[in-house]
Amino acid sequence: MAENRVQHDHDQAELLPCVVDLYGGVSVNMEKPMDSTVFAPLLQASISQWREQGKKGIWIKLPIEQANLVEVAVKQGFRYHHAEPDYLMLVFWIPETTDTIPANASHRVGIGAFVMNSQREVLVVQENSGKFKGTSVWKLPTGVVDEGEDICPAAIREVKEETGIDTEFVEVLAFRQSHKSFFRKSDLFFVCLLRPHSFDIQKQDREIEAAKWMPIEDYAAQPFIRGHEIFNYIAKICIAKSEGEDYAGFVPLSTKTASGKTSYLYFNGDLKNQLISDNQKQKMPM
Amino acid sequence: MAENRVQHDHDQAELLPCVVDLYGGVSVNMEKPMDSTVFAPLLQASISQWREQGKKGIWIKLPIEQANLVEVAVKQGFRYHHAEPDYLMLVFWIPETTDTIPANASHRVGIGAFVMNSQREVLVVQENSGKFKGTSVWKLPTGVVDEGEDICPAAIREVKEETGIDTEFVEVLAFRQSHKSFFRKSDLFFVCLLRPHSFDIQKQDREIEAAKWMPIEDYAAQPFIRGHEIFNYIAKICIAKSEGEDYAGFVPLSTKTASGKTSYLYFNGDLKNQLISDNQKQKMPM
Repeated sequence: MAENRVQHDHDQAELLPCVVDLYGGVSVNMEKPMDSTVFAPLLQASISQWREQGKKGIWIKLPIEQANLVEVAVKQGFRYHHAEPDYLMLVFWIPETTDTIPANASHRVGIGAFVMNSQREVLVVQENSGKFKGTSVWKLPTGVVDEGEDICPAAIREVKEETGIDTEFVEVLAFRQSHKSFFRKSDLFFVCLLRPHSFDIQKQDREIEAAKWMPIEDYAAQPFIRGHEIFNYIAKICIAKSEGEDYAGFVPLSTKTASGKTSYLYFNGDLKNQLISDNQKQKMPM
Repeated sequence: MAENRVQHDHDQAELLPCVVDLYGGVSVNMEKPMDSTVFAPLLQASISQWREQGKKGIWIKLPIEQANLVEVAVKQGFRYHHAEPDYLMLVFWIPETTDTIPANASHRVGIGAFVMNSQREVLVVQENSGKFKGTSVWKLPTGVVDEGEDICPAAIREVKEETGIDTEFVEVLAFRQSHKSFFRKSDLFFVCLLRPHSFDIQKQDREIEAAKWMPIEDYAAQPFIRGHEIFNYIAKICIAKSEGEDYAGFVPLSTKTASGKTSYLYFNGDLKNQLISDNQKQKMPM
């Protein structure tokens, strides 16, 4: 009996350390360096035990410093799940049943900023690289939403970076979903209305060839805009918005999650005052 | 001279085949197997040449079958960019200037479906795994939008899969952006209004514990919904929508891109007829 226990403890020491997850799987984080010849038998023995224990999804996070272990994991049946600059996540589904491993992030998120002054002039730029380089098309300032960044501050940041103009976020006027825009990934592009608080353009040199205020009708009349269905629609939405207050976009409302994180909900701005007032009443003692 | 040319041709043969991109960089796709001892000097010589040529971002796509080459690339300065089940993309920025390598996909996209029948009952489910397991909370059917899938068919698909109910997509009522929901990734969750075309529930067993039609006020009155700011707001938006036609969400409009791909634009439904009619007039001969 005692011998059995020693044997058992000894076995435990020869397995990879892991933590269990809520979905019947386990995760291994290889934070420390290990020789691949040490890793291979450890991983094999661990998989055998996880299989006996009825575990499902097995995750291995390999920091880039442990790139020497990638080949071993792949040879033992792991596939890639996702990668970030500093690590690679691999996964292996043990059961014979259909794999319920969650998909990797699938979308990049971008913004286009519609900023108009009181003379009905819209803030536009020409880019000095990428597919618009040298086309002389005047376009709305656009940019990619950074990892962990909210759409509303991202729009303000991009306008400031590209043109030096200070703005306030008003609402999302429309959004477009497109596919295979970047490797196999999809793209969600939010057209945002911002109100300018400054008007003197200081263009950024790295990405921007030129920036100016342009009459909105001239912007919309550019052959490139008229010739592309989606740019044409977006221009018409911007014009409809500029002509009156009838077009309601989605406004952001900052909310707190149960874990205390901030999360924005975007919805038809016409309902905003009612929602906030309802919420305050609900919080008040009866 | 002749000898020089031979030498030159010989050098060329000892470099990795690559294609140039629009941004001053090159891409290498290692489709065929190669021994890592052959790859290492080839990569080193190639980097030297790309450096001399003033190349910027260098991309190497390693199919998972070539996992043996990952360590070599990392040792020569490459970092991970992204991974899919069947390949790993690595990148190396040669210049001393700031790297303008585009970011990896940052968001997962999910949908929640608001489906109501003529008795003001909403279609709700209880899940049998994940964080809602065993909580007895009745929630809207939700799901993840697949890679390459549009939001509107994804909502229809999830409702059909979870409950067997056939629906038609009406509009996006609201959306929420949250961060660090899955590894380091962010989440965009679209609340969609769908109109039911069938009413007999056939629940799916794998993910769903129970499904039913529930009076909308009972749904909104659940302590879990009332106790979470964002669920509470979403319930109130659904109720506002159910009580009249005043709340305009974003409707999808299918458009064609220049390359012939379909791409949906979502915007305030009140403007839809006007936009389509304008577009048709524009296409008609004067």
